[in-house]
Amino acid sequence: MVKSGFGKLTSLNEAIKILLANTSIKEMEPVKLEDALGRILAEDVIALIDVPHFDKSAMDGYAVISQDTFGTSNALPKTLRLIGSVLPGQVFEQKIISGECVEIATGAPLPDGVDAVLMVEYTERTNNHITIYKSVAPVENVIKIGADVKKGEKILNRGTTISPRHIGVLAAVGISYVKVFQKPKVAVLATGSEIIKQGEKLEKGKVYDVNSQTLSAGLKENNCEVIDFGFVSDEFEIIKNRIIEGIKKSDIVLLSGGSSLGASDLIIEVLNELGKILIHGIAVKPGKPTIIAKVKNKLVIGLPGHPMSCLSNFYIFILPVLRKMSGCCYEISGRYIEAVLTRKVASTIGRYEFLPVKIIQKENKIYAEPIMKGSSAITSITCASGFIEIDENTEVIEKGEKVKVRLF
Amino acid sequence: MVKSGFGKLTSLNEAIKILLANTSIKEMEPVKLEDALGRILAEDVIALIDVPHFDKSAMDGYAVISQDTFGTSNALPKTLRLIGSVLPGQVFEQKIISGECVEIATGAPLPDGVDAVLMVEYTERTNNHITIYKSVAPVENVIKIGADVKKGEKILNRGTTISPRHIGVLAAVGISYVKVFQKPKVAVLATGSEIIKQGEKLEKGKVYDVNSQTLSAGLKENNCEVIDFGFVSDEFEIIKNRIIEGIKKSDIVLLSGGSSLGASDLIIEVLNELGKILIHGIAVKPGKPTIIAKVKNKLVIGLPGHPMSCLSNFYIFILPVLRKMSGCCYEISGRYIEAVLTRKVASTIGRYEFLPVKIIQKENKIYAEPIMKGSSAITSITCASGFIEIDENTEVIEKGEKVKVRLF
Repeated sequence: MVKSGFGKLTSLNEAIKILLANTSIKEMEPVKLEDALGRILAEDVIALIDVPHFDKSAMDGYAVISQDTFGTSNALPKTLRLIGSVLPGQVFEQKIISGECVEIATGAPLPDGVDAVLMVEYTERTNNHITIYKSVAPVENVIKIGADVKKGEKILNRGTTISPRHIGVLAAVGISYVKVFQKPKVAVLATGSEIIKQGEKLEKGKVYDVNSQTLSAGLKENNCEVIDFGFVSDEFEIIKNRIIEGIKKSDIVLLSGGSSLGASDLIIEVLNELGKILIHGIAVKPGKPTIIAKVKNKLVIGLPGHPMSCLSNFYIFILPVLRKMSGCCYEISGRYIEAVLTRKVASTIGRYEFLPVKIIQKENKIYAEPIMKGSSAITSITCASGFIEIDENTEVIEKGEKVKVRLF
Repeated sequence: MVKSGFGKLTSLNEAIKILLANTSIKEMEPVKLEDALGRILAEDVIALIDVPHFDKSAMDGYAVISQDTFGTSNALPKTLRLIGSVLPGQVFEQKIISGECVEIATGAPLPDGVDAVLMVEYTERTNNHITIYKSVAPVENVIKIGADVKKGEKILNRGTTISPRHIGVLAAVGISYVKVFQKPKVAVLATGSEIIKQGEKLEKGKVYDVNSQTLSAGLKENNCEVIDFGFVSDEFEIIKNRIIEGIKKSDIVLLSGGSSLGASDLIIEVLNELGKILIHGIAVKPGKPTIIAKVKNKLVIGLPGHPMSCLSNFYIFILPVLRKMSGCCYEISGRYIEAVLTRKVASTIGRYEFLPVKIIQKENKIYAEPIMKGSSAITSITCASGFIEIDENTEVIEKGEKVKVRLF
């Protein structure tokens, strides 16, 4: 009944390489600008207009012919004839000639003939005459056509995750629909005869379902559509049928539990029957008993049942797959922070280790405090701010060493 | 028609202090665990159970009385009688006595009488006899009751933004509903006779609505409920009625445009008629012409119409208000990164300046490249990774100086 141990473990890099090689990018779909937040651009966006679309005033003041103002000072003021005013959204139809000026508000288009705006602070008004006490250079206080965006300019790159400021530039060039990648559809199924639902009475030997909850939340947070199958007990046919259903409805199936080699670990057998095992056992800690399989050309990933291992593997293996599938570009994200380790940690040679740490700020210095509760404890990751990565060849990191913390 | 300049500007700190003093935390509401992601906990959460709820095996192997194994080695093996097996979710009812053992799977509860688990690797099985080649200490390979969470322990603090890993610990202790703060309801209205909707034909003098789009997106990103009034032209009665409607339907009203002192700037007059002006003009750059008013005990904030100023002020002034309203605690967020300035920048004494920068990574070093397009350009902020803050008393930052970049 008890089976033999893992063979050779696959390295982290190799596992991610295999996962990505078996992942393709989703198709595109159009969405309304209002619904585009958080979605990923499926094409470069080219501006079809100049922004602004006309020369406009950057100030409240008087639109003037700059040459008329040359030589003016407090000691040598000049007077111009005020022939009207223009507000934002209006167009002043008359062409201005030398000696004339137009009152202009910030954002209003410059009337024909003028080339600068004199701020109101440097003027004095008497009926229809404006005395000016300062000269302005051509284009002073004017926002030129195309100063913000030039027609034909590429304003956003394919693969950009659309943030409020990207919404801004799309809005500015008048785009009402954007082409984004469809969201990855991910089926989630926890397995284990010991699992019960929150709210049910907790008998001895039973545990509340954690993994389908954390995985679903992690997927939602990363803009995926979740097909939540909840959990099932360790029964071959039930698990098999649920995976078949998952494959039909989704792009990728995530399982948790039963991924090792113990008596009740059925996942490897089910996946062997349904498709092809690509990897069983990855050289990471925690998270070793992980299965990567392909069933009907779709990835099915068997994650460990220990809550910490399951969620940690989600961040390490699954997120890159989802990012690729989503069409996301991998840009620097500021998700790393440098910190000083608060105590010595030992690691296993040959295993790439993910150690949860808590960030502590003391006297303007940032410290990383390792959390050592183990892979079965969900609290290992709950109170962590992020984790440090310890590669296969490092056995010890000393107290006081600088470490790079990958933040959640 | 043109009005006089601002009086004394209010400092950034003073403005934020006044805003927060006029902000109260929302009421709480219960949500299902599945819907709790991104919400903010309205109370401390205390575990009502131990996790695990029973002593369980951390390994696949044999549950033994550790004393039976003492002195065992490869040279001196011992044999135990196998009296059954236990899988996760099952309970082995019989009490184990000296000389007996039970096959046990990872996660299964320890039978009564045993106190350790011997890994399968150190055993050999012949029918119902298990030969053991190694001793185990008490509690070895056992996860003790409460090792993850202790009954009565505080597992999460009020004010926590619920992430997937918080969902995990809530799930583990069996919680199906959590009390969170209600989302802030925020009404958004852009003003300006020049504004038209994306998709409409762009005549001279008109611009597409940017601010209602960026503000709505920023609010959604920060878990607020948005009441989007779109935009209206610069007409006193229309703006006034829309603000009255906004006040009724929301906790706070954000306006953009018309917040300065120009000919078409009506916001100050409307708010003067409806309520009390707390601040007009803040010593920040960009974003000076900002109005903070109180109408029927609710904040109404008039933001500048320049897209960059509007969105920048959203991040600087409005987010702290929304965070307080949401019940969010202010923890270290990893939203800062240190970088080297790529060129000298000059700033205005007396104005707290927000300068958008682009993060560039070159040869393992992180650089901040200032973006100098000005406050009217939405692209100033679009291509920025974040911004640096230059305080009132700093006139110049030299090229090569280290700066702290606040990331978006």
